Parts: sequence; structure tokens; C-alpha cells
Amino acid sequence: MSGAIKMLEGGTVTSPQGFLAGATYAGLKTYAEDKLDLALITSEAPCVAAGVFTTSTIKSATVTVNREHLAKGPVRGLVVNAGIANTCVGEQGYKDAQEMTVLAGQRTGLTSDEVLVCSTGVIGVELPMSLIRSGIDQIQLSSDGGHAVARAMMTTDTRTKEVAVSFELEGHPVHIGGVAKGSGMIHPNMATMLAFVTTDAKVEADFLQTTLAEVAGASFNMLTVDGDTSTNDTLLVLANGLAGNQTIDANSPDAGTFREALSQVCIHLTRELARDGEGASRLIIVEVAGARDRDDARKAARTVASSNLVKSAVNGADPNWGRVMMALGRSGAAADETKIDLFVNGVCIMEAGSPIPFHRDAVVSQMRGPEVTFRLQLNLGDGEAIAWGCDLTEEYVIINSAYTT
Amino acid sequence: MSGAIKMLEGGTVTSPQGFLAGATYAGLKTYAEDKLDLALITSEAPCVAAGVFTTSTIKSATVTVNREHLAKGPVRGLVVNAGIANTCVGEQGYKDAQEMTVLAGQRTGLTSDEVLVCSTGVIGVELPMSLIRSGIDQIQLSSDGGHAVARAMMTTDTRTKEVAVSFELEGHPVHIGGVAKGSGMIHPNMATMLAFVTTDAKVEADFLQTTLAEVAGASFNMLTVDGDTSTNDTLLVLANGLAGNQTIDANSPDAGTFREALSQVCIHLTRELARDGEGASRLIIVEVAGARDRDDARKAARTVASSNLVKSAVNGADPNWGRVMMALGRSGAAADETKIDLFVNGVCIMEAGSPIPFHRDAVVSQMRGPEVTFRLQLNLGDGEAIAWGCDLTEEYVIINSAYTT
Repeated sequence: MSGAIKMLEGGTVTSPQGFLAGATYAGLKTYAEDKLDLALITSEAPCVAAGVFTTSTIKSATVTVNREHLAKGPVRGLVVNAGIANTCVGEQGYKDAQEMTVLAGQRTGLTSDEVLVCSTGVIGVELPMSLIRSGIDQIQLSSDGGHAVARAMMTTDTRTKEVAVSFELEGHPVHIGGVAKGSGMIHPNMATMLAFVTTDAKVEADFLQTTLAEVAGASFNMLTVDGDTSTNDTLLVLANGLAGNQTIDANSPDAGTFREALSQVCIHLTRELARDGEGASRLIIVEVAGARDRDDARKAARTVASSNLVKSAVNGADPNWGRVMMALGRSGAAADETKIDLFVNGVCIMEAGSPIPFHRDAVVSQMRGPEVTFRLQLNLGDGEAIAWGCDLTEEYVIINSAYTT
Repeated sequence: MSGAIKMLEGGTVTSPQGFLAGATYAGLKTYAEDKLDLALITSEAPCVAAGVFTTSTIKSATVTVNREHLAKGPVRGLVVNAGIANTCVGEQGYKDAQEMTVLAGQRTGLTSDEVLVCSTGVIGVELPMSLIRSGIDQIQLSSDGGHAVARAMMTTDTRTKEVAVSFELEGHPVHIGGVAKGSGMIHPNMATMLAFVTTDAKVEADFLQTTLAEVAGASFNMLTVDGDTSTNDTLLVLANGLAGNQTIDANSPDAGTFREALSQVCIHLTRELARDGEGASRLIIVEVAGARDRDDARKAARTVASSNLVKSAVNGADPNWGRVMMALGRSGAAADETKIDLFVNGVCIMEAGSPIPFHRDAVVSQMRGPEVTFRLQLNLGDGEAIAWGCDLTEEYVIINSAYTT
């Protein structure tokens, strides 16, 4: 029997048993107020691990290194820096990513193959390895260090993204924790987004990879801030098995509970990422129901959530629903205009393709709140999806007009 | 023998022989300074016509009516209004679009089937047909009326887009003229863009349609302002044959000259549309060479030109070339990082995938000019393409945060 899934107050990536973490300021960030930029996570026991990576053809060397290390077997550590992406720097990128795993291994008593590595920040600049060498030695690991990792990962993020849940499996308390960063260059498949999930659940490797990909498809891959997919996007999960439950695989009675808990963690982080999109003043939620199939629903939801015109309208608290229809129309999802119902924050604006009179002032004032939800019922099939995004603001343009200068 | 193609000073859609046009203020625009909003173009002789339309599944009724009228044979007139898009208004949309062709026909002595119709503006609002009925009667047609049409089509455009060229075929002077509008909701396939091209060339119908589609593929469909494809996008060409040349078809010796002249007109209008993108302060030109094939080159060029992060960087005159690489990476075009050369306004920034030192101040100061050109040489094949876009500015957000309110 599985118990209920509970959110842990102050939960983070070190909430699961046996994970330690810490961070330091190595000098890689020059533009952020938050002065941590290099972090480590380690596990007291070897971890079954899985990952989902950017689909971009131009990739950070860290992606290559992580794929190699995941293929070699269990891992026990992860090193991450912010400030510099280690991308588009030629062969030096791979050497430096490898060296980071060597340095992190030396610091924590692991082989380099047991360490994963992530970088985020400016593209086209080499990592100052001397700063990283001296920085890694300064990191103090603790069982409360997840908060420091969350801070160290931030680039233009204005706040940390952290979460943990707990549930019981056969009487054993089990935890899943996560941290994420990402604010701009965020779009499905995947965002300039780094997300690290830890769990003390005992999980079979193939099941973990399959479940992670499924969960990412309905969470991080339904997130869009600006339509730009990064070169470095990485979602990693480490499962050290210390909870003592029986190993979960696809046929376990507990598979559903684990998937649901992982999903809650990933969706929580996704919402927090969307809410903190660069310059964002409010969260946009696009719910699509009645699409021909799930792929169509996802396409439609993502396209509406990523439309600059929809995002600008939300910024102005303007119920300009014609733009939602425009974005739906160009999404590639099957749609029959005469069947579509559209709701803005629960208020029906269009029914069976015809606009219906609504109290404009009431809708505008609702749209001034922290969340705006568009619900599109296509009434064609049973495909459903939710996408998360944020409004487009003058602040976004200001932030991104002078990032490297 | 074909002569050279010359740009006509002050050229417009009435520069070709036998075309008349005019416009009036019917009261549909409430927010624009330019107070023309309803226009007519007519031809003294029946025209072979062709069109390219939005690929959106949510379409203005005008698109449906135009497809029907083009299928019925020659046309002689075109009516266009700005202010209201006649889209997402249920069955009334089709009735009103049809009535506009009836009214324009009555005013000009044509059957309604001989008239094409376009609308642009706010979605989800019915056309006030009483204003259109009285407005159409006020329109005065003249052989210099193309300029008024260009003004009447404008929505958030800050200036008219007009052009004409002339060339000789067998000693006959031949003209092609065009007008266009579009400023936001502009992305390939097609922009919220209306473009009308007229010519006195005598052209065979199938050749005209095929050539128009080809030319649009390398001009209007390579234009992006904000990634949002409109419900109303329409490109129409009317050829009245009054120049007296021998009918041009695919096998004519003059086919290439005609295609080149049409291409010059369409590329000129495309550049003018990009330059006048909502809030834009500068034109972005993305040239891709050495792609695996033309489709890849087009994908890469459009993706770079439409990236919010690239557009924001150009706004800040920031040579943040990493974002160009990021956008290339997510474009879906084949790319091998180690083979790529990248130039910003002619200055080589990256060679064979490695950044090379460049004089940053010089590049920044060049980027402050009216045009920024990124040239990507992928060195994989011989696919080439050019895309046009504009920078993303705070002004874009301000314009689009309160368009209907």
C-alpha cells in the first residue's frame, strides 16, 4: 500500500536520505547579486541515475560527458557551475568538463566516472579552470546544503527553485527532492534549464529513465519562457536506494506512486521556473482539452503559451483572446473553429467559435493577478495537456539587450 | 531579349498600366493617426490572378472568399479594410466578406466574383457593414491611387510599403507594382501581412501561381517579426496583360526576367516590412550558406531571425553570438559545430567552431546602425537562404500590451 504524497516544508535536493551538498563562490559570476557559483551534490551510496538533455544540435560539452558517465554505470556526485556555459569553445570544452568531474571526484573521494557535470551561463567563453580548481576545495558538504546548490545554479533567476515530497512504500519513508534553475532561453526540449532530482527510493535503472522521460514530457517540456532552447539543458535524477523499499520497476505495485511523486516534484519546479521567467510579472497556464490526441494538445498548449502576442497581452492584462485563437491556428493542432470554447480564468469568452459578451472589466481585473489561465476546449477528441509560461515584459527586453556587455 | 529591371521612383500598385485605386476613411480605425481604412484597386481589363494564403487552421473568412473567387476565373478588383480582421466572428464573417465584394462590385461595375477582399485588424469583432456600405461609395479611383491604398491598409505600421519596377519584354515596357502592410503577428507562412502586387504583363495563370509561390518562399515566407502567424495573411497578384507582351508561361524565354522582377518587388516589400516591425529599431538580416540543402538553410535563417534572445541582443547592439549558435542549434538544420563560420556585419566572430578574438567596440558600434547582418557558413553543402527580421524592443511590448484596450 502506498501512502499519500506530502510536500515537505523547506524541502530541497538534500531532503532525501544520504545526500550531501554545498556551494562556494569561485568567481565565475560577475553580474549576479547572489555570490555562489560552484556547487557539489554527493550521495553516501551509489545511485541509479537517468537524464534528459537538450535536443539542440549545438550542445555543451557537459552533455556529452554526462551521457558517457551515465552509460558507464552508477554515479555518486554532481558538480555544477553558473556564469559560464562551457559551450562553443571548441575542444577545450570537453577537456574542461572532464576535468571538473576529476576535480569533484578528488574532493569527494569518487572516481571521475561517478561524477556528473553541468554548466550554465554565457556561451563562447572558456571556463577559468584555475578558479574552479581552487573553488572546489572550498566547498563544505552538509545534509542541508541543497539550498546553497539552488542559489549557486542561478543565473538571471531572481529566486531559488526547490521542492521535496515524501511518501511511504511498504512502511519505509521515501523522499524525492529537486532543485532547478532557468529564467531565459527556455522552451520545450528543454529549457536553459538545469534540474537535479534526488531520491532515496530504490529504483530499477530502465524504469527510472523511462519514467523520467515521461514525466519531463508533461512538465519541463511543457514550459516556455521565450521560445529559445538552450545548448545546455539537463535534467538529472539520482536514486541512492537508502529508503530500503523493494526495488521499483515497471511492474511494481508502487510504480504509479513513484511516478506521481516524481511528477509532482517536476511540475512544481516547472511552475516555479515559469513564474520566474526573465522579466515575468505573471504565470501563464494554458490548458487544452478535447484535442484530437495528446500530441496535438501539447502542440496547441505550447504554441499559445509561447506566443509573443499572447504574452504581451497578458502583460497588459488585456483579454485579447483573438491572439489565443491565432496561436492555436498556427500550432499545427487540428482545430474546427465552430467547435472551440475558450475560457480566461474560468470566464467563457468564446463558445462554439463565436465570441460571447463578457464583463470586460471583471476579466481585466482578474488578469492583473499572479496567474492567468487560458482553457481551450477543442471538442474533437480526448487529448489533454497543460503548458506553463509567463508574460513578455519590457523588463525581458532590458535584461536581454545587455547580457554579455 | 529582356532589358534590365529598373526601380521606379515613387512606384506603387497603380504604376502598371490600367490599374486605378483609391481609399477613404470609413470609421473602422480608432487608434491610428492615418485616417484611411477602406480601399479599392481595380483593373481596366480582366486579370489573371494568383494568391498565397495563411497556413493557419483558424482563418479569416476573407481567405475562403478569395480562394473561391480565384477558382472562378479572372478578377478585376480588390477591396481591403484595416481596423477589423473579420476573423473568429462565426458565420457572419463569411456573409460580410461576401457582401464587401458585392458592394465593391456595385461601386465599380464588376460582378462580386470578380472582386477579391482582404481585412486586417482586431480579431473577434464583426465588421460594421453600414460604415463599409457608405464608405465604399466615397472612394474616388485614380491612376495615382496606390499611395492611398498603402496608407489605408496600415494598422500598427508606421509607414507605407510601396514599390514598382519596370523592364522591357520584346520592346514593350512592362511594370510590376506592389503595396504591403504588416508590423506585428508576422512570421513565415505568412505574416499578418497583406501584400498586393499588380502587373500589366501578360502571364499564363498556372505559371503566375507557381512563380508567386516560389517567390513568396524566398521573400515573404522568410520574414519574421514576432513568430506569430496571422489568420488573415494574404499575398495576391493581378496581371491584366495590358503591356502587350507575348503571354509568359513556364517555357517562355522571358519567364526568368518576369520571375526576377517579381522577386525584386517581393523582397523589397519584405525588407520594408521587417524594418517596420512593431517597435523595431533595426533590420536583422540572416544569411545562411553551406547548409545541407535549401530547406535546412531556410530553417536555420528563420530560426535565428526569430529568436527573442538574438533580437534582444541586436536591440542592445550586443554581439552575443552565442545566441546565434543556440538558435541555429535548435532550428533542426543539420550542423557540425566544428565547421561553422559566423560573421557579424562582415566581421568574422567564429571560425570552424572556435571563437576568434575580435574588436568588440568596433562591432558594437557597427551594430548600432540601421541593419545587422549575421552570416552563418555551415560548410556542409550548398543550401542557401536569407531571412529578414527586426530587433525586439521595449516598444514592442508596450504596443502589444494594450492593443484592444
